[in-house]
Amino acid sequence: MSTRTVKSLLASGALVVSLGVGSASAFERYNSTISEAEVLVAQKNWGDAVVAISQENDTKGFAAAKAAAEGALDGAYGYNLGPVLFKPTLTKSPQTFRTTREGALAYFVGGNPKFPNDTGFALKGWRKVEVQNAAIQLNGATATTLGNVSFTDKDGKVTTVDKSWTFRKDDRGVIRIVQHHSSLPFGN
Amino acid sequence: MSTRTVKSLLASGALVVSLGVGSASAFERYNSTISEAEVLVAQKNWGDAVVAISQENDTKGFAAAKAAAEGALDGAYGYNLGPVLFKPTLTKSPQTFRTTREGALAYFVGGNPKFPNDTGFALKGWRKVEVQNAAIQLNGATATTLGNVSFTDKDGKVTTVDKSWTFRKDDRGVIRIVQHHSSLPFGN
Amino acid sequence: MSTRTVKSLLASGALVVSLGVGSASAFERYNSTISEAEVLVAQKNWGDAVVAISQENDTKGFAAAKAAAEGALDGAYGYNLGPVLFKPTLTKSPQTFRTTREGALAYFVGGNPKFPNDTGFALKGWRKVEVQNAAIQLNGATATTLGNVSFTDKDGKVTTVDKSWTFRKDDRGVIRIVQHHSSLPFGN
Amino acid sequence: MSTRTVKSLLASGALVVSLGVGSASAFERYNSTISEAEVLVAQKNWGDAVVAISQENDTKGFAAAKAAAEGALDGAYGYNLGPVLFKPTLTKSPQTFRTTREGALAYFVGGNPKFPNDTGFALKGWRKVEVQNAAIQLNGATATTLGNVSFTDKDGKVTTVDKSWTFRKDDRGVIRIVQHHSSLPFGN
Repeated sequence: MSTRTVKSLLASGALVVSLGVGSASAFERYNSTISEAEVLVAQKNWGDAVVAISQENDTKGFAAAKAAAEGALDGAYGYNLGPVLFKPTLTKSPQTFRTTREGALAYFVGGNPKFPNDTGFALKGWRKVEVQNAAIQLNGATATTLGNVSFTDKDGKVTTVDKSWTFRKDDRGVIRIVQHHSSLPFGN
Repeated sequence: MSTRTVKSLLASGALVVSLGVGSASAFERYNSTISEAEVLVAQKNWGDAVVAISQENDTKGFAAAKAAAEGALDGAYGYNLGPVLFKPTLTKSPQTFRTTREGALAYFVGGNPKFPNDTGFALKGWRKVEVQNAAIQLNGATATTLGNVSFTDKDGKVTTVDKSWTFRKDDRGVIRIVQHHSSLPFGN
Repeated sequence: MSTRTVKSLLASGALVVSLGVGSASAFERYNSTISEAEVLVAQKNWGDAVVAISQENDTKGFAAAKAAAEGALDGAYGYNLGPVLFKPTLTKSPQTFRTTREGALAYFVGGNPKFPNDTGFALKGWRKVEVQNAAIQLNGATATTLGNVSFTDKDGKVTTVDKSWTFRKDDRGVIRIVQHHSSLPFGN
Repeated sequence: MSTRTVKSLLASGALVVSLGVGSASAFERYNSTISEAEVLVAQKNWGDAVVAISQENDTKGFAAAKAAAEGALDGAYGYNLGPVLFKPTLTKSPQTFRTTREGALAYFVGGNPKFPNDTGFALKGWRKVEVQNAAIQLNGATATTLGNVSFTDKDGKVTTVDKSWTFRKDDRGVIRIVQHHSSLPFGN
């Protein structure tokens, strides 16, 4: 391979080579940073989880939906790391912010007398969730996104919200939501 | 100083000592991380800037207010670093997200025919801005906050919004807003 | 408290206040960044561990020293996170770099036939370890230091090395060494 | 767009697709993290700069070599950001650590009476520099490497050192060395 080719490939970011000193696999790696591809997968997983909770609810009932929501929270949010900066779409004062796992679970499936206004956002018959990013920032262990998320229910009705997420890659490489601000469009 | 005292002080985070090997000033420092104190100051500065823009508008007119807004944007936002993930309180599709400086300026002071729905949020006679944090995350060069911000106008009317900010410390040590999601409370 | 006092305290970094919107304890916190105080404690703990291993060896024998070394490695190094970039003072090719826990343990206490040149650095009768930093960089979850470390043995003989460390705060808040380059002074 | 084309673009790093939820070019990006490819290029650039300084010295003399060294320092080190944690291969107490640009320049080209032991490491007729990494850590804005670097001079003599580097991506996207610990192999 010519030097020119190597430089070209390096410039493109397409190739990681050890520059004449052996193969790339010659060294060990540790990567605590989150990539754009990981962010996009995590966003898609979030939407899939909302659909899955709705489907569990519609086919197996509340207990199954709640179990699915707990699994999604434990797998995809960072409540195990610390308070999550979660402002759901449909909450209001004095329970607007759901920095605890219990508060987030109540929002998704309701049924918690401590959060009497929660009716279970993830139980509303969602069948499809689509994410349309406006911009993504990669900041090392964390990445932040801004954009729209559209939810289609079983009757084909679409609800679109404005949403910001910050994802964190934890020590085990799991991507977790540590910030989540969602709101209905102004004027809606 | 006793060992016990040193340990106690260290545990409190209140003291940086060189542990028996000379004075703390014996070494040089480079600190690219943002502190909680810096975050709180940046939040206060943001509120003060909104009040200042309003006051410029009320006492000196639009041109002065616009100049103040430009100064605030250039000093306190990260548009010089890249796209800012800014979802203002009162914007809607197809101009919901203001990832550019021009879009942010239009939101704060209006007067830009490219953003015909913008009437100038910072021109609405604000006299006091208060920040009430629900939670703060410190993530190295960036920090993210979630909470309420209350704006009091010249007639004493208070408007409260839900707000997330991510601040970044740049290479020169300036704290800049790189993410800003603001929304009216659900149901309002 | 006067505004002036608040500003002064904020500038000193000594105080975190909520700037007129309630008490500081009103909000939750998550802090993934490492502080200078945490770095200094981790350095001191490293030196104390070396002394403790030597003392275990001198008073209880090799098995106790090895157990102490294992405890120190598991508590203070980041081998649980990934490869550690460890270049000990006294290793040479082809076993210069100890990116694995096994290689690090062999360096500290010897006795591993896979590392035949290792005689156990931590077994050499150390009684005091002192760190003299030249400079410290705080980079969020990680911090890097450069300076001298001096080891005094039971006969009062002092050995000084040049040392770089990078510490990482893990998800549970434990400070771990993820990079460690140590070398004898040039010409020694 | 064919699947093959998409895969090819993904492999090149040029495209990140939004996984069925719209086109990738629909969103803006900000990336403050350093990649492995950027680290490898920065390492190669460092070696090329050492060779270039030597060649300037051999063909054009000291002044040209010094100018080349200044250009390399300003372009590839982080002295503009803060103190650099630089322990060169051939320095000793009380001038072991070169946290300032002046100290680094003296090491590379000598000729500074404040650093009387410096003879100019980069002036020693180097013709080839090769980097052999043992391990690389990606930590967001910074990345740290450990390995060997081999220098071949005009007579074909090879000198190999143990070397740790930490690189930082600055606000403008420039990759800079902020930590550099180099040492002769133990026993040499």
